[in-house]
Amino acid sequence: MPTAVAGPEIERLIQLLAKLPGLGPRSARRAALHLIKKRELLMAPLASALRIAMDKIVICKTCGNIDTQNPCTVCTDPRRDQSIIVVVADVADLWAVERAHAVNARYHVLGGTLSPLDGVGPQDLSIDALISRAHGDEVKELILALNATVDGQTTAHYITELLQGSNVKVTRLAHGVPVGGELDYLDEGTLSAAIKQRTLF
Amino acid sequence: MPTAVAGPEIERLIQLLAKLPGLGPRSARRAALHLIKKRELLMAPLASALRIAMDKIVICKTCGNIDTQNPCTVCTDPRRDQSIIVVVADVADLWAVERAHAVNARYHVLGGTLSPLDGVGPQDLSIDALISRAHGDEVKELILALNATVDGQTTAHYITELLQGSNVKVTRLAHGVPVGGELDYLDEGTLSAAIKQRTLF
Repeated sequence: MPTAVAGPEIERLIQLLAKLPGLGPRSARRAALHLIKKRELLMAPLASALRIAMDKIVICKTCGNIDTQNPCTVCTDPRRDQSIIVVVADVADLWAVERAHAVNARYHVLGGTLSPLDGVGPQDLSIDALISRAHGDEVKELILALNATVDGQTTAHYITELLQGSNVKVTRLAHGVPVGGELDYLDEGTLSAAIKQRTLF
Repeated sequence: MPTAVAGPEIERLIQLLAKLPGLGPRSARRAALHLIKKRELLMAPLASALRIAMDKIVICKTCGNIDTQNPCTVCTDPRRDQSIIVVVADVADLWAVERAHAVNARYHVLGGTLSPLDGVGPQDLSIDALISRAHGDEVKELILALNATVDGQTTAHYITELLQGSNVKVTRLAHGVPVGGELDYLDEGTLSAAIKQRTLF
């Protein structure tokens, strides 16, 4: 909009900000104004942080994680359990699992999930590399931390079949009631799974 | 969070993105990942758009608008009615009024509203400059487009009193039912104002 009242440079900034997930056209305008008001405190640091990240970011050749070193911080961390690999679809999922602080292992980022409808096949994902890693001497377990969606579960089944007959244990995340969740709002499938997989109190 | 799994450069980028209005820590992480994935398409253009905006943006000395020229595009537009000044608290409000396409006039950005509790007095706002402009030969009306909050209305009253006895007409926005709004969800004050200021059908 503000072509008429602001310069094209400001409009361009708003357009680019609006492409970020979570920001629509209106919040992009608000963000642009906020940046302009905090020129030294926020705009300049953000511009240089973007440049620095652009120059430094690499994809880890081992696990597919995003980092500023290759192999990444996770792969080179000697305190992590080398016998477990947590398999995730995306780096965002890796960060989510890491935030849960439930497992101190290494990861493998597939780069997506199998999706026949979208034309995503095994060759589009980092599955071959995962199988090679899984056959390494030290690996004893793969935890498939994939979305509980059709595509996620298709991918999980595919990987499990490829590793049948090997010595690697393949596990998946438990289904159940979210912590803090209310039963009344829960779908039947989840509640049914939570009952079937009930644990001793 | 991702100090352990990503480099400090990525963490810095996330921290800065989280300072934008509308982005929390979680959506800032998602935005950072999106930027990293679209390095050439989005990250590089955004970095340079920020730099360009940094270098070019100026505050209009006449009206307080943000633009890349001084006086700004609005003040120098000869097609705008020179006899009306729309008084707004903030540049965001200027953009909002401009989007409404209801008036083709010039603006005056106060830079906030009077707020005794927050220690904002008349000297902190661009009120003296407004009064000087209002006393200019061509100005016939000030439209006070200020928030319908205590601070906004205090500011409106203050400006109105300063101009008492002058030839300038001071007007304010109408109160009433928002277009598309449902009466059932409306507060009593607004509904009462809408009834009192009813217009002929």
